[in-house]
Amino acid sequence: MPVLLIVVDGLSDRPIDGKTPLSVARKPNLDRLAEMGINGIMDTIAPGIRPGSDTSHLALLGYDPYKYYSGRGPIEAAGVGIEIKPGDVAFRANFATVEGEGSIFDKTVVDRRAGRIEDTSELIKALREIELPVELLVERGTGHRAAVVFRGEGLSDRVSDTDPKAVGKKVKRCLPLADDAKAKKTAEIVNEFMQKAHEVLENHPLNRERAEKGLLKANALLLRGAGEMPHVPSFKDKTGLRLCVIAATALIKGVGRVVGADVITPEGATGNKNTNLEAKVKAAINALESYDVVLLHIKATDELGHDGDFEGKKAFIEKLDEKIAPLLDLDFSKTCLILTADHSTPIKVKDHTADPVPVVIVHEDVRRDEVSSFSEFEAYKGGLCRIRGMDLLNIALDLLNIAKKFGA
Amino acid sequence: MPVLLIVVDGLSDRPIDGKTPLSVARKPNLDRLAEMGINGIMDTIAPGIRPGSDTSHLALLGYDPYKYYSGRGPIEAAGVGIEIKPGDVAFRANFATVEGEGSIFDKTVVDRRAGRIEDTSELIKALREIELPVELLVERGTGHRAAVVFRGEGLSDRVSDTDPKAVGKKVKRCLPLADDAKAKKTAEIVNEFMQKAHEVLENHPLNRERAEKGLLKANALLLRGAGEMPHVPSFKDKTGLRLCVIAATALIKGVGRVVGADVITPEGATGNKNTNLEAKVKAAINALESYDVVLLHIKATDELGHDGDFEGKKAFIEKLDEKIAPLLDLDFSKTCLILTADHSTPIKVKDHTADPVPVVIVHEDVRRDEVSSFSEFEAYKGGLCRIRGMDLLNIALDLLNIAKKFGA
Repeated sequence: MPVLLIVVDGLSDRPIDGKTPLSVARKPNLDRLAEMGINGIMDTIAPGIRPGSDTSHLALLGYDPYKYYSGRGPIEAAGVGIEIKPGDVAFRANFATVEGEGSIFDKTVVDRRAGRIEDTSELIKALREIELPVELLVERGTGHRAAVVFRGEGLSDRVSDTDPKAVGKKVKRCLPLADDAKAKKTAEIVNEFMQKAHEVLENHPLNRERAEKGLLKANALLLRGAGEMPHVPSFKDKTGLRLCVIAATALIKGVGRVVGADVITPEGATGNKNTNLEAKVKAAINALESYDVVLLHIKATDELGHDGDFEGKKAFIEKLDEKIAPLLDLDFSKTCLILTADHSTPIKVKDHTADPVPVVIVHEDVRRDEVSSFSEFEAYKGGLCRIRGMDLLNIALDLLNIAKKFGA
Repeated sequence: MPVLLIVVDGLSDRPIDGKTPLSVARKPNLDRLAEMGINGIMDTIAPGIRPGSDTSHLALLGYDPYKYYSGRGPIEAAGVGIEIKPGDVAFRANFATVEGEGSIFDKTVVDRRAGRIEDTSELIKALREIELPVELLVERGTGHRAAVVFRGEGLSDRVSDTDPKAVGKKVKRCLPLADDAKAKKTAEIVNEFMQKAHEVLENHPLNRERAEKGLLKANALLLRGAGEMPHVPSFKDKTGLRLCVIAATALIKGVGRVVGADVITPEGATGNKNTNLEAKVKAAINALESYDVVLLHIKATDELGHDGDFEGKKAFIEKLDEKIAPLLDLDFSKTCLILTADHSTPIKVKDHTADPVPVVIVHEDVRRDEVSSFSEFEAYKGGLCRIRGMDLLNIALDLLNIAKKFGA
């Protein structure tokens, strides 16, 4: 009796001339799901609260983000494959190019992406050799991205970024943001790491090679978004259920790893509009054989929303509609399928908003309503009315008769 | 300006071929109430949380069950008439038949209901004479059922059951479930009670008489569901209002007593499908003269749901519809009538589920909506949208202009 939770990132919109990409897209399969199920709108966190994809995914998995979210750092670090533990302090990092004389903090950022460097694996290996008073974990992300984790006693995430977030500015010194020994100690260690990383990178053969080819050196690592990994009970411990997350995006993979899910990235799944949707849908169907809850994350709608690309978002929704066709043949006397989004990313706003997302729950036993189209303008008329992200999985587990009774 | 809250236990369902007992029943009076009122769906506890009848009734009366519920024991004890106090540890109990040699814990259960004994009043009287290091309260329930309460300093409900819950098994020793002095002391007292109760019962004239007639002896009391009575403010203290609960079921009577309500069980009210509905409706109308809030509980729908009896549930709903006719003549410029359920008990599940319940509030001043039928498939279209059990009474008190303003 598994749950398939399909989260289409940033799917929903605000209307432009009364239209949204979702409302005008040709999407017979999504509409069929709406017709088969019980519909509603959902505040993934709470009404009017603009969700991140990390906080909203935590909520959709039943974890209160106000309790379990401590910044993007730990989740990105988990997403790129670092086995992060409670108490670790994690940063997101960029390989960057700096120029000038003196220490790293005297130098100026000339490119925050080091000429959009693609393969940093050799640099990462060299960085791992750095010796610090605490344990250091470094892992590459996609392109110029990386994650850095400090592990040891008495660390704190109450420290500032070293990334000046603009070219032409000097690298920033990490400062304690709290008046305590932990924050001071952490800032000192971060600054020691910044200087040592610069030295290692500046003299690395790969960078000498890049300089010879006229490419920008990846000679600094800029840190931002410090977060201390909180103690998060695993999904298995919390619910007794096996969770699988199918995603290509580091942030979502990170959420999956933080809650102890198995994370699958099928061949060709990229997190952009050219992703291999067939492979993802197939992976989801397979995963339903061996997991109780399968979260299938689709990213491109969010990117196209951030780009303000109405037609592109509409076209991708139409492609998604086509590729999810096999899911309509699932046995809904056994499987509960949920189709929804983690937040809206309206074309007009080019960022996440708190406009509620449409949600449909398909299962033989739901009270079917009269909604027959999956869109922002129809979902609210459905039998779910308006629910919250934290409640969604509980509703599904009740439907599947997995939920326990509270009381007699 | 009273509130009449009619709670039809387990009334709502999940659809079978698109139908529920409520949706297909002929129920012109219930539909008339839907037409006169404002409708919605309600999560009595929270979306996806499967309610017990005890926890949901607490919520419907405005008591957060996560704060005020500590198991079925104390509520059942209150239900059978024990004046339970904060700190008391209460158990549900069964008169049973045990056989064998040695102490109570060496003996084997041969019937968990002592041959379905009906009148235990003489046995209860004898049990009350048992001397223990703490105060003992015992009261009979219906048939073989009873409640046992231990009152004194330093007791705990973190102890195990003595009921093995199966025939052919030995009576269990009560064990502490926490590593503290309270749990150990309680377990010792419970075990002392178990042995003494067995001795009193084994030699009781009524049991000798039963043995002579070839009936099973009611020679042991098996305990389960320990719960420590929490401090619950009375409904009167909390709201300033007089509450009356009209019910025949011990669990609901118990909820009423725990919150300090007057509890009325009219002649012929049984809690099953042959209950005297006329008497209950009449009692409710009378109670509206002298109480501010009257909770009228109807049980049989839940039982028929547990039995998986679609036709029986439908027939009982039709009977209920007929018998509540006098309530349509209430003066709704004065009285606020609420019709709802405490949870769903779907035919297909034969147990409580979290599927939201329909709710209608009838009063001259409500914003009437377009719903004209009382069913799971119509209620969500109403003007209340989706509310929670804890909010219901507040909505009614606001309608009646009893609610106080928060702020200026």
